[in-house]
Amino acid sequence: MLLEKLNWRYATKKMDPAKTVSDDKVERIVEAARLAPTSSGLQPFEVYVVTNPEVREKIKAIAWNQAQITDGSHLLVFAAWDNYTADRINHMFDLVNEVRGFRNEGWENYRQMLLASYPQRDAQLNYEHAARQAYIAVGLSLAQAAFEEVDATPMEGFDPASLDAILGLGERGLRSVVIIPLGYRQPEGDWLVNLKKVRRPRDQFVTDVK
Amino acid sequence: MLLEKLNWRYATKKMDPAKTVSDDKVERIVEAARLAPTSSGLQPFEVYVVTNPEVREKIKAIAWNQAQITDGSHLLVFAAWDNYTADRINHMFDLVNEVRGFRNEGWENYRQMLLASYPQRDAQLNYEHAARQAYIAVGLSLAQAAFEEVDATPMEGFDPASLDAILGLGERGLRSVVIIPLGYRQPEGDWLVNLKKVRRPRDQFVTDVK
Repeated sequence: MLLEKLNWRYATKKMDPAKTVSDDKVERIVEAARLAPTSSGLQPFEVYVVTNPEVREKIKAIAWNQAQITDGSHLLVFAAWDNYTADRINHMFDLVNEVRGFRNEGWENYRQMLLASYPQRDAQLNYEHAARQAYIAVGLSLAQAAFEEVDATPMEGFDPASLDAILGLGERGLRSVVIIPLGYRQPEGDWLVNLKKVRRPRDQFVTDVK
Repeated sequence: MLLEKLNWRYATKKMDPAKTVSDDKVERIVEAARLAPTSSGLQPFEVYVVTNPEVREKIKAIAWNQAQITDGSHLLVFAAWDNYTADRINHMFDLVNEVRGFRNEGWENYRQMLLASYPQRDAQLNYEHAARQAYIAVGLSLAQAAFEEVDATPMEGFDPASLDAILGLGERGLRSVVIIPLGYRQPEGDWLVNLKKVRRPRDQFVTDVK
């Protein structure tokens, strides 16, 4: 069922500016990202949902003028933590204790292990690790969009520093990694819509170690 | 439906060594990774499916002895390209032309743009970019596993250089990034199975820009 949806979806090149994705669909697409598994459960990223037309025009201008950014109705921006800090780690561990209603010694030891390692590491290394986690969520949001029959085009083709400035991400310790316009395909203007999806065949992708 | 599955899954801590995931389920879990969207469609990673018990014992030893690696029936190893080379880029562009049955000028210009940039960049930068793409596929394989009611525990807690040596990845220009044991939970030995899934609430995860 997921496989059918993955075969259905494609990187839509032309979205219909007259169509709007409903809020409940967008919420479920974002919820898939929120539920994504991440390393140590830290969820080291956030998602911005941009509908404001002027803001999206500004973003389009620093993203090779890709039309889906304004032809779609919503733009998701995935932004990773720029670093792992003690505050961020403690926030998640405290939240876990609060939700589960107890403190567990093994869990607290694990917290101390992370506190003793992550915040001391190079910020760039931590950011790269956080960014990878965001990509798990990108995959799941794309899958949920397909289940909603919403078109979604993941993009890395933008200037991250400019996007961070437009959304004020730097002040919040975030760095943009992927943007995803959401909308509905306009097949008559889309060169890709009728072309075959291409993937390497299994024997060039999978190795069995039996 | 995907959301239900994401709520069902968890990072299984104890798998039942007596149970085996069927080959057709494993194939569909790998197929979700193969269908994952990637930057420029390059699919810059491969998946190893390890069932061999001795090999999994060796991997467990360099992965904090996490028991799921041998208690599960299959171990997926996601390995990213160590670099973007002209050969790898040309292979994918040639495959696209072959499958679609024509050469397109825009597509060929895009090939030249990638050839003029990626292979000249720092290998580590290219590897980091490739690794991120692999994480999209990790997310989709975890989702498909949940649809199959197969338990799956993504792990970064292993020594990548040792794993690369065990599987001979270096010679193939690959670097391991994530491993995922597949199997079936053994609830009586699993401290996590009955604990609540914890995620930051929406207001700590999503920002609306209206």
